[in-house]
Amino acid sequence: MAGGLTPKGEQTRQRIVAAAAQLMFDGGVSGTTIEDVRAAAGVSSSQVYHYFKDKKALVEAVIEYQTETIVGGQEPMLAALDSLEGLRAWRDFLVKHQEELECRGGCPIGSLGSELAETDNQARAKVAAGLARWEQGIRSGLRAMHARGQLGAVDPDELALATLAALQGGLLLTQIQRSTKPLQTALDAMLALIAYEAAA
Amino acid sequence: MAGGLTPKGEQTRQRIVAAAAQLMFDGGVSGTTIEDVRAAAGVSSSQVYHYFKDKKALVEAVIEYQTETIVGGQEPMLAALDSLEGLRAWRDFLVKHQEELECRGGCPIGSLGSELAETDNQARAKVAAGLARWEQGIRSGLRAMHARGQLGAVDPDELALATLAALQGGLLLTQIQRSTKPLQTALDAMLALIAYEAAA
Repeated sequence: MAGGLTPKGEQTRQRIVAAAAQLMFDGGVSGTTIEDVRAAAGVSSSQVYHYFKDKKALVEAVIEYQTETIVGGQEPMLAALDSLEGLRAWRDFLVKHQEELECRGGCPIGSLGSELAETDNQARAKVAAGLARWEQGIRSGLRAMHARGQLGAVDPDELALATLAALQGGLLLTQIQRSTKPLQTALDAMLALIAYEAAA
Repeated sequence: MAGGLTPKGEQTRQRIVAAAAQLMFDGGVSGTTIEDVRAAAGVSSSQVYHYFKDKKALVEAVIEYQTETIVGGQEPMLAALDSLEGLRAWRDFLVKHQEELECRGGCPIGSLGSELAETDNQARAKVAAGLARWEQGIRSGLRAMHARGQLGAVDPDELALATLAALQGGLLLTQIQRSTKPLQTALDAMLALIAYEAAA
């Protein structure tokens, strides 16, 4: 993505993307101007345009950044989703993280998807790829449980997709209600289903 | 909400709200100007401002309109959610509706919530109220199943909240992936859990 940049250039680019990601998380893509990003990153307009030809290009970099931060950051935990204990630890982490954020912002990737899906098809596809990476992390754990005969006849891939949906819906309701209860309840329902399958 | 309007006034007001709801569904709140709404509704600017003092007031009317259209429209179906057959019929309706929309737009209420939650606290609360009405519809069916001893020891209220989360997450992923599969899979997971509870 940032091929050919010097280490210093890469650093500046990253600072711009991180500032844009925070602003867009707080106020949406449409509520964020290049001028806001410039000021928050402490760079000049020409620097912003040196790295990103337009806002659309910056938005795509933000989607990649959020995918890397969130899904990349969860990868050690996702690698342990091959047991009910691992799933419970991940659920606890997600709920605690929302408590720390006071239930603000929702899912940084899902929110970008919701805002951009109908107006920027490339951004939509990039969000889909980011979420697919998350789904894949969940799926590999559930596939391992399935391979050990711990999920009965259920399709682990469908369970992974349903878990990602529960997570996204739970995060959205948690944001709207300003309570972690929806996220907690949505994930617990999936854990209950997985426990039933495991016992079946 | 529209107390004191003549029938003709009420009609004009409704035309403005319906036009705004469609534009905001297609391109988001931020992508919709009062001028767009005026043109789509075929009224003058002063007519728009006669009914709505500003865009914020119009957005609130749109949230109420979408709640009434979607949740109100589903109420006969929600009243039948006290059996697995009723739940399956509702799931089929929701999936078919997304097919008809070619998976565009996501949930008209949830999308408004995602876009507005961090920037308009009154709108957030109104979306929360709309979603609570939906949850209530789901809950009353599950409570009836529970009262008949058909849900084992599970809490029907938590099951209702988890089902709403599965629906919202399923709709969001369906919008982002342009496929009904996530919605279908998310709702099927909830149906499987309810069937397990019913058999427990």
